[in-house]
Amino acid sequence: MTKHLFKEVDYLKRQLLELSAMVEDRVYRAVKAVRERDGKLASEVVVSDIEIDRKEVAVEEECLKLLALHQPVAMDLRFIVSVLKMNNDLERIADLAVNIADRALSLSKLSPADCPFDFEGMAEKVRRMLHNVLESLVNLDATLAQQVLRADDEVDAINREMYRRISEKIRAHPSDIEQLLYFLSVSRSLERIADHATNIAEDVIYMVEGEIVRHSKFG
Amino acid sequence: MTKHLFKEVDYLKRQLLELSAMVEDRVYRAVKAVRERDGKLASEVVVSDIEIDRKEVAVEEECLKLLALHQPVAMDLRFIVSVLKMNNDLERIADLAVNIADRALSLSKLSPADCPFDFEGMAEKVRRMLHNVLESLVNLDATLAQQVLRADDEVDAINREMYRRISEKIRAHPSDIEQLLYFLSVSRSLERIADHATNIAEDVIYMVEGEIVRHSKFG
Repeated sequence: MTKHLFKEVDYLKRQLLELSAMVEDRVYRAVKAVRERDGKLASEVVVSDIEIDRKEVAVEEECLKLLALHQPVAMDLRFIVSVLKMNNDLERIADLAVNIADRALSLSKLSPADCPFDFEGMAEKVRRMLHNVLESLVNLDATLAQQVLRADDEVDAINREMYRRISEKIRAHPSDIEQLLYFLSVSRSLERIADHATNIAEDVIYMVEGEIVRHSKFG
Repeated sequence: MTKHLFKEVDYLKRQLLELSAMVEDRVYRAVKAVRERDGKLASEVVVSDIEIDRKEVAVEEECLKLLALHQPVAMDLRFIVSVLKMNNDLERIADLAVNIADRALSLSKLSPADCPFDFEGMAEKVRRMLHNVLESLVNLDATLAQQVLRADDEVDAINREMYRRISEKIRAHPSDIEQLLYFLSVSRSLERIADHATNIAEDVIYMVEGEIVRHSKFG
């Protein structure tokens, strides 16, 4: 890598870290808004999505600039393409945080209902995945990326169990159906955030080890 | 564009068209499996996902090869980056088809229940979006891409309405709750497929018109 490209890649990493911190913050606040039935906080998450969108566009432009000006090959090329994909994923994760915030807003207007599964534990797991996967990309740490893959299996299991519990709870408390369907939606959004983190982790492992772990569960 | 790059880009387009046709087919069959309560068809969709995954990896490698060997700039560069992103989206869409097929499998084991919303109409709209967005990318047709954006608003409206109807139906027929939650999951998967198509459409418009329509609803 030339000195100049090195400097630009370093700048790109910092941009991505900034975006990632913003996205993590949105997920955290959206989940908090559900827990505390805080409609105001939920609205803030929805409105502030525009900042994420702008940042995503800026990171993509930066990647295109690097590709055009420095014409990187091999590992550098693959790294920049991974940043492009991760950038895309981060923006989608922020959209899912907006979905959760939308549900929080609806829930804040209904009478309180107990959530029949450990949605905070799930949210915490998902946030840790997000944090770890970014670190794994910036430091090219395949071991940490592998941890993210394992955590995804746990999140999937929680999400499956949640369907069963929501059904039971609706049967027992049919009057809470609206709230319960919103909780189900929150759980699905968290599970999809975990999926995005997993996709990024698979890319990191591929970059570091040259091994296609994507889809290896099927292969 | 050099003659050689032109030929390679043409090959890339054909690869992407092939992948897209495969993905459309999976969505079609997953929806059919729900409609006809066909567990065997659903299993086929799940198992055949490995073909999609292999193709996605091949298209990505092709893109990286083009970037490394031809070092394209400007519009060519943007086109290849869009193919990379679309490739990623197509693979996710296929995953959502697998989710739908999983639900079809579960539904085929339960007693039949009426779906309280026009899920076939929704599925048809989503498939058309998929088809149109690919065409818009291959032909750089921004008008067609705009149509995809409009169709997404309709799909979102159907998905919102569906929540209301599912709640009502569960209240009226609590014994069908499992089936109804599965229908809800199918609807959410279709809505997410539409979101992926929309993301691609926004990219196409950006390429053709240089205008960032992504996120313009927030801007």
